Parts: sequence; C-alpha cells; structure tokens
Amino acid sequence: MTAYDYDLFVIGGGSGGVRSARVAAALGKKVAIAEEFRFGGTCVIRGCVPKKLYVYASQFSEHFEDAAGFGWSVGETRFDWPALVAAKEKEITRLEGLYRKGLEGAKAEIIESRAVLVGANAVKIASTGKIVTAERIVVATGGSSNAQEAMAGHELCISSNEAFDLPELPRSILIAGGGYIAVEFANIFHGLGVETTLIYRGPEVLSRFDHDMRRGLQEAMEAKGIRLLLSDVIEAVEHAREGGLIARTAKHGEVRADQVMLALGRHPNTAGLGLETAGVALDKRGAIIVDEYSRTNVPSIWALGDVTDRVQLTPVAIHEAICFIDTEYRGKPTKPDHDLIPTAVFSQPEIGTVGLSEEVAARRFPEIEVYRAQFRPMKATLSGRAEKVIMKLIVNASDRKVVGAHILGHEAGEMAQLLGVILKAGCTKDDFDRTMALHPSAAEELVTMYNPSYVIRNGERVTG
Amino acid sequence: MTAYDYDLFVIGGGSGGVRSARVAAALGKKVAIAEEFRFGGTCVIRGCVPKKLYVYASQFSEHFEDAAGFGWSVGETRFDWPALVAAKEKEITRLEGLYRKGLEGAKAEIIESRAVLVGANAVKIASTGKIVTAERIVVATGGSSNAQEAMAGHELCISSNEAFDLPELPRSILIAGGGYIAVEFANIFHGLGVETTLIYRGPEVLSRFDHDMRRGLQEAMEAKGIRLLLSDVIEAVEHAREGGLIARTAKHGEVRADQVMLALGRHPNTAGLGLETAGVALDKRGAIIVDEYSRTNVPSIWALGDVTDRVQLTPVAIHEAICFIDTEYRGKPTKPDHDLIPTAVFSQPEIGTVGLSEEVAARRFPEIEVYRAQFRPMKATLSGRAEKVIMKLIVNASDRKVVGAHILGHEAGEMAQLLGVILKAGCTKDDFDRTMALHPSAAEELVTMYNPSYVIRNGERVTG
Repeated sequence: MTAYDYDLFVIGGGSGGVRSARVAAALGKKVAIAEEFRFGGTCVIRGCVPKKLYVYASQFSEHFEDAAGFGWSVGETRFDWPALVAAKEKEITRLEGLYRKGLEGAKAEIIESRAVLVGANAVKIASTGKIVTAERIVVATGGSSNAQEAMAGHELCISSNEAFDLPELPRSILIAGGGYIAVEFANIFHGLGVETTLIYRGPEVLSRFDHDMRRGLQEAMEAKGIRLLLSDVIEAVEHAREGGLIARTAKHGEVRADQVMLALGRHPNTAGLGLETAGVALDKRGAIIVDEYSRTNVPSIWALGDVTDRVQLTPVAIHEAICFIDTEYRGKPTKPDHDLIPTAVFSQPEIGTVGLSEEVAARRFPEIEVYRAQFRPMKATLSGRAEKVIMKLIVNASDRKVVGAHILGHEAGEMAQLLGVILKAGCTKDDFDRTMALHPSAAEELVTMYNPSYVIRNGERVTG
Repeated sequence: MTAYDYDLFVIGGGSGGVRSARVAAALGKKVAIAEEFRFGGTCVIRGCVPKKLYVYASQFSEHFEDAAGFGWSVGETRFDWPALVAAKEKEITRLEGLYRKGLEGAKAEIIESRAVLVGANAVKIASTGKIVTAERIVVATGGSSNAQEAMAGHELCISSNEAFDLPELPRSILIAGGGYIAVEFANIFHGLGVETTLIYRGPEVLSRFDHDMRRGLQEAMEAKGIRLLLSDVIEAVEHAREGGLIARTAKHGEVRADQVMLALGRHPNTAGLGLETAGVALDKRGAIIVDEYSRTNVPSIWALGDVTDRVQLTPVAIHEAICFIDTEYRGKPTKPDHDLIPTAVFSQPEIGTVGLSEEVAARRFPEIEVYRAQFRPMKATLSGRAEKVIMKLIVNASDRKVVGAHILGHEAGEMAQLLGVILKAGCTKDDFDRTMALHPSAAEELVTMYNPSYVIRNGERVTG
C-alpha cells in the first residue's frame, strides 16, 4: 500500500530514463516518465545514432575514390544533403517509436511535458500544472552543448544539435573543439565535401587518448585536407558582408566559413528542474552528486546518466539504470561499474580503445611493455589511399596483464568492444600469443606482436 | 662441424617453408629453400591475398547501391576486369618480393627450381640435376585443387587458380562445391556482375559450420540473386555450340555458363617429390604423416602446412614452422596447438567463427546455453538493403565457459580474431556480461545477450 501516486517517476526520456521506467513498469511498479522533447534522448535524437548514420554517408566519397584502384570507373556523383537529413529523421522517428512502444508495452505512463521537482517525493507537470507524488524519483535529464555565452557572436554559431538539421549543406565550416564530437563532425563534413577547419585550444585533439591515437588521427585528418588550427581559440564571430561568418581567432587571424559549430564541452541539464527546491545537491559544474548507487543526497531521488557527469555514454546510463532497478526493485544491491569501458571515436580513421593509455600506464606501473604495430590496411594497397592502421597493447610487466588496448583504423570500434571483454576478464599478453592469427585480417596484428616495441621502466623508455 | 651441405633444406616457398627457412637462417644456420613457381605460396599467389582483394573489388557494387539511401546519386559505373587482375598481379608481385627479401636478408639460399628427395638427407635440384645434402629437410609443398579427372569435360573447367587470371570476366559462371572457396568465389563473381550459380552435392553449404551461419549465408546469397543448386552434382561438361559451356547436372538438367569452376576440395602436393625414395610415409589421402612435432617417420625430414593435411590455413603453417624452429634450433620442444583456431569465410555476408558449433557442443556437453541475436545492421536502415547479422555464443552450462562464438555479418572476421583470444583464455559468459557495451556497434550485441535464447540439455532443446 503506497500513499504515492506512483512508485517511480522518471524525469527525462533518454537512455537511462527510459530503461529504468520500462523495466520498473515491467516488474509491476506504477511508473510515469516525463519528457518535454522527444523520446530517445541525446543518443537517438541528436547523438550517437544520427552521428553514425552521417559517418556512413560521409564514407561514400572514399568508396567512390577507392573503387578506381579495383577496376571500377564511377560516373559523376552528387550529394543531396536534405535527402540525408530526411532519411535520418525517418529513422530516428522510427527508433523514437520503439522507445515509446517499449514503455507502453510495459504499461509505463508517458507524460509529454517538462516535469520539475517540487519536493522530495513530488513533481509538477509543467504542461498541466498538476502535482503528482512518487515513492522514488529518477532524474535523467542528460546534458547539453555549452553555448559559450561569453563569446561575442556565439548566437551566430551552431552546436551539434543544429548541425544535424542544417537546411543546406555549408560550403565551409569552422568547428571549435578537440573532443570526440568536434573530431567526428569535422570528418563527417569533410567527407561530404565541405571545406572543413577545426580549431582547438590544446596542442593536440583528444587529449586524454593514447598519444599514438591522437597523433595518428591528427595526421590522417590533415593529410586528407582538414585544416587544423591548434593551440588557438575563436575570440569572436560576426556576419561577413558577403554572406557567411567571420571568426576572429587568437593566432590565425580571420577565418571565414558558412557555419561555425561549437563543440566545447557539455554541461548537465540541471537548471530549472526544481533540484534546489527538493534539496538535491549539485557539484561545482552543476552536475547532480550521487553515491555509488546513483542516489542523490535526498533518499527518495536518484540520478542517472549525463546529468551526473560521471561517464557520458549511452551504455553507461543504461547500466546505471539497470543497477538502480537491481538495487531498488530486485533486492540485489548493485553498484554501477565504471572501470574498463571500451569506447570509440567515429572519426575517419576510427579510434577504438579500452583501458589505460601508454602515458597513464607508465605512471601507474613500475614497468610496462608497449606492443605497437603500424601498417597499411590491405584495401589501401589497391585503392592507393595513404592511410595507416595503428594498434597498441599496453602490458603491465609484473603480471603480464593487458591494461590498455588502442586501435586507429577501420572497424576499431568493433574490435574495441571485444578487447573490452578481454581486458575485463583480466587476460594476459600470453593469451594473445597463444591465439592463432586469422588471415587476412587487421586484427591478426594484435595476436602476432610477439616482442615488445619498447619497455617503459619507472617512467623512462628503455629498448624492448 | 657438419658433414652436410646445408643445415636445413626447405622444399616449397609458401608460408610454412619461407618462415622456417628465414628464421633458421637468421639463427645462423646454413639454409636453402627451393621453389619451382613463385615465392609466397597459395596464400599470397592464388589464395587468401588475391581472394580478399577481389572481395573488396566485388563490394563496390553494393557501396554504389547503398549510397542512394544516404543522399548520394552515382553516375554510371563500369568494371574493368583486366584492370583488377593487373592491380592484383602488381600487389602479389610486391609481396613475393618481400618474401624473397626476407629470405635474402637472413642469408638463406634461394633455389628457383623444383627439388625432389633422393634420400633421408639428400635432395636433387631438378633444374641442374645437382644433388645436395642437408642435416634436416622440411617439406612444405602445400596442396592443390582436385581436378575431378573422372568427370567428362573436367579439362574444360577452371579451378580457383585460373579464376584469378581469366582473360575476361565471364558473363555467367557455374561453381561446383560447398566449401569456403566455392562460396567466396560465388560472392565475388556475383558482386562483379556475373550471373552466378553454385552447385553442391550436400543439402547446405559449409557443412561443418554452425547451422545458423550456414543457413543465414545461404539465404543471403539466394536473396541477392545467386542461384543455388543443392543436393546436386555436375555429371559432365561440354562446349556449347553457341559458345560457352554446358554442364549436365544430376537433378537440375543442363546449366549453361561461360565458365565452370571446380572447388571440390584440395589434395596435398606429394606426387613426384621422391617421398617414396626417401621412405616418407603418406596417409590414404596422400598427405605426409607427421607426429606432434611435425616430424615424419624419417627422423631427418619434417613436413609443415597443407602437405600434411592437418588444418589448411596460412597462420597454422606459420605456427607449425615456428614450433619446428623452437623444437629443433632453440632447444624448446613445442608442439603446434591446433585447438580453437578462429577462422573467417570471406563471403558476403562474412562469417567469423571460433570454437564449437551449436551441434557439436550439444553432443559434447550435457547442457549448453545458446545466446543468439539477429538484427539488421545500422547501415542497412538507410541503405534499405535487406540484410541481417546473426551472432551466437555457445556456453557450457556447467562452468559458464564460452565454447563457441559465431558471427554472420560485416567484419565478422575481425571480431572472430578477438573472440579467438577470449575463447583461448577460457573466458566465461560472465566476462561478457560484465563488459560495458560500445554504442553504436554491431559487436555490442555480444555483450548484451543477458539471457539464453534456449538451452540444450542432453541433446534436446528446452526453453531458455
């Protein structure tokens, strides 16, 4: 017998919110989920899914070029941006429908409105003004691109949100940022024929990645014609007299482009949610502070996914949701495990990685062995494309465990997923050595690097 | 002080022969290697390497079709077969050069001639008639396609050897066989626009593969327009009056095709090698019988690779070569390990597999859990291509070990390589469950199949 309107009220219809609402409802709980925009969250609506579809779209120009080396001649090709946007829209609408259907099938109540906390167990539905109560509340409102409001002309710029739905394909674009979103979009727009410039305050993009990944990608991007302005920032953006925009940079003068896209980090969506009213504590960045079980300082309120600013990834939010369900509704207290998460950057070439970079591993362990292979992919021998694959395994010398695995090249993400299993299981380099190669493949390099390329002892590189 | 001309004489310049010659020479041994055709063996010259290049070539037609769904229009495309053959030839000549260079760099003596055994420690160089002696002899002469000499008109047919170098692309081809070579070539020729028919005596191709892989591939091949004549054989082939060939089949009447390719198994190259003279024992299939260390019944003679008919794969021959070197020249007796070899079929869709099929596992263990996912790849949502990916994990219920992993779909081979490490390390299903998904990827399905699709207990399927 509960005195509340709902057992569970979820605010936010993204990956974490939908999963927790759906599974709790399927377990027989009375559940409502409120979403003011579209179900599916950043991932489905304006993140991973449309991004990867655009990556596929942008790869065709390479396919057309590569074909010649294999005997094909290809007539004139043309790209219709609105057709891609429409096809993408149709697909994410389909996925959105599946999310709704899953919720409906589990008998969760769908509320198409913003919802704000008005107490530890109370939520106000913005569209109706109605206040409802719930025994447990999950906040899973995600995050958003930083708008850089301090920068003059920031309102002329777009974020990744708008980039997906531009009414026309720009002839040129300037992208600010050095994280994976900036890098992925730079490669997408370049592949679609847009003159692309990337500007980043640091000396190298993807600063937390293994240095070979960073440098390898950066070299590949420059080689194919993406202009990189490093150790530089945009100071102001204004309209150009002849149309388009002018960005004033600190070091590289004026850069003209049809569009300027800002990908300078994301912040948790915690403003105007009533969190202060409910007494939910935030950290300095505005993220909801949670304990190891995703519970906030208010015992009836949990927070999942990007709004907690732990690891901003779809599967992590889903995992946190499942742990919440296990803990609260299945009597099986489970802490989310954020260790050894495999990730990919869907740049071109792609990066797939899990575990420690060489740099971090070298600081953490007295001695590491680095196994490194660099080679031209087989397809490039006939296409003539100047590209290289880099593969690295980082091994803790004392117990032979592989503590980091990094790949730059085609299908690096697919490989990283399985390297994730290997690292999670605590496999050693000997397990790789014992495995027969599969020929011809790219991944066979990972099992045929028998001798370390070099060794790092107490932070210093010594010959292997 | 040796009384022999050479420490090691290797007959055959393929993967196993070259590796053993090169490494032994690098260790300071006096080595000669004789090859009558081209260095590189089946793999480089008329196997894995040109095959995979042709697979890439044949995929472009799908790329051109898929592009439309992503907003691209592609002008008329044309394919120039002689251009592909020439490009392939250039690449394998380059690789052949690398093999030679490796041998020369290690100071192995290269003998471009057939060589035959004339004793337990003696070899005759066919081109000069000279007889030389060696302390150890390695026979690594590989295998060849069966020519089906009992079939009328077999001399009108080609094997995979000729298929690579046909003077012109046939308009139609009939391929006999149900193994991976038949299947791969059927997909290559179809992708290049050739009207393709495959005839196979069994009810399903790839008989030793997991049934989902077999059926999934077969359905995909039929769906894209490859004609499959199953449970049938060619009885005779003759010239057609109007040009091309007519194959008389047992069940499907006459089949007309520009070319008929036979891919009906391979046999070890042991004829005319002087094996009888040297006293080397062969099995009923004509393969050299070897012990666990690849040693023949003659203590000074070893045999490696396809000529022993153990596992006909390049990495296996290389592995056997390294084990031979370790055992004989590094004082570290090592038996080749033929267990849990990951393999791929470069069909389209591709198959990647390691470990036991469901059928074999169900016979071997009292209870197995089958985890099976079937889904449309993300790219197909926009391309509109009717294709599916199938992924399976076979788990021994008693200890949770994953004993088989099977994938049908893009990059299945790359994934199978890493699944090979996972199975070799003895990982359990729990290791998969513990691993965070990488989104969006195909491989993430492998770590998100939390509940068995079904269970097989004592050979009978029960609900999971």
